Amino acid sequence: MIRVVECSILLPLHFVHVLVCPRREVKRFIDLSAHETSDLWLTAKKVGRQLESFYMATSLTFTIQDGPRAGQSVPHVHVHIIPRKDGDFEKNDEIYDAIDESEKELKRKLDLDEEKRNRSMEEMAQEADGYRLLFS
Amino acid sequence: MIRVVECSILLPLHFVHVLVCPRREVKRFIDLSAHETSDLWLTAKKVGRQLESFYMATSLTFTIQDGPRAGQSVPHVHVHIIPRKDGDFEKNDEIYDAIDESEKELKRKLDLDEEKRNRSMEEMAQEADGYRLLFS
Repeated sequence: MIRVVECSILLPLHFVHVLVCPRREVKRFIDLSAHETSDLWLTAKKVGRQLESFYMATSLTFTIQDGPRAGQSVPHVHVHIIPRKDGDFEKNDEIYDAIDESEKELKRKLDLDEEKRNRSMEEMAQEADGYRLLFS
Repeated sequence: MIRVVECSILLPLHFVHVLVCPRREVKRFIDLSAHETSDLWLTAKKVGRQLESFYMATSLTFTIQDGPRAGQSVPHVHVHIIPRKDGDFEKNDEIYDAIDESEKELKRKLDLDEEKRNRSMEEMAQEADGYRLLFS
């Protein structure tokens, strides 16, 4: 079971791509304290191990797009974690198209929060099921 | 001045792409201790800040290709750090071709070490000049 860590939280976008971000909303990686930096990456490491095992993968991609010119679309530092295995993408670099798509998906989720629209029970139940499968 | 940190070292490949790796040679990110994980990323954060300032960039790409299926060609954990700014690549994803090229360059450097071939004084002086410019 992944411990709910002090500083970092988990945002599942879909089941082969997870974001980990600090609780405190800061735009850039350099804005994190030493404690938050350590906590973020210790959390990312644990989550990566679980994802890799769960999906029977053999490798992981970890990326921070730190600032708009690096592809960041939401101004809240986050680590992308993607379990990788043979045949997951026809060309290795296609993984980064998936990252860009998830950046947009994250932005849509946050825009939804700003509009104060509640998610349906079904949506929340699906997310809870995902957590149970991944971290039980 | 960047302090030479306890666990992590700096490998400049060329002047717009730097690798930071732990001193202890381990293949996968999960193999690092908590202390090494923290030190690696605190170092990467500091190096990123210096690179971004030096190159008058506005963003940074941080990536670990953790395992062969994620594009890792040398079995020693390392963080890629690339300062980013307007117009650096025609398409954002071309940055990952540069990362792949640097993976090959790193492998060539390590193969060179294995063959016990010494670098020339000129090569070493160029590298030292690079450090002075970046971290003075």
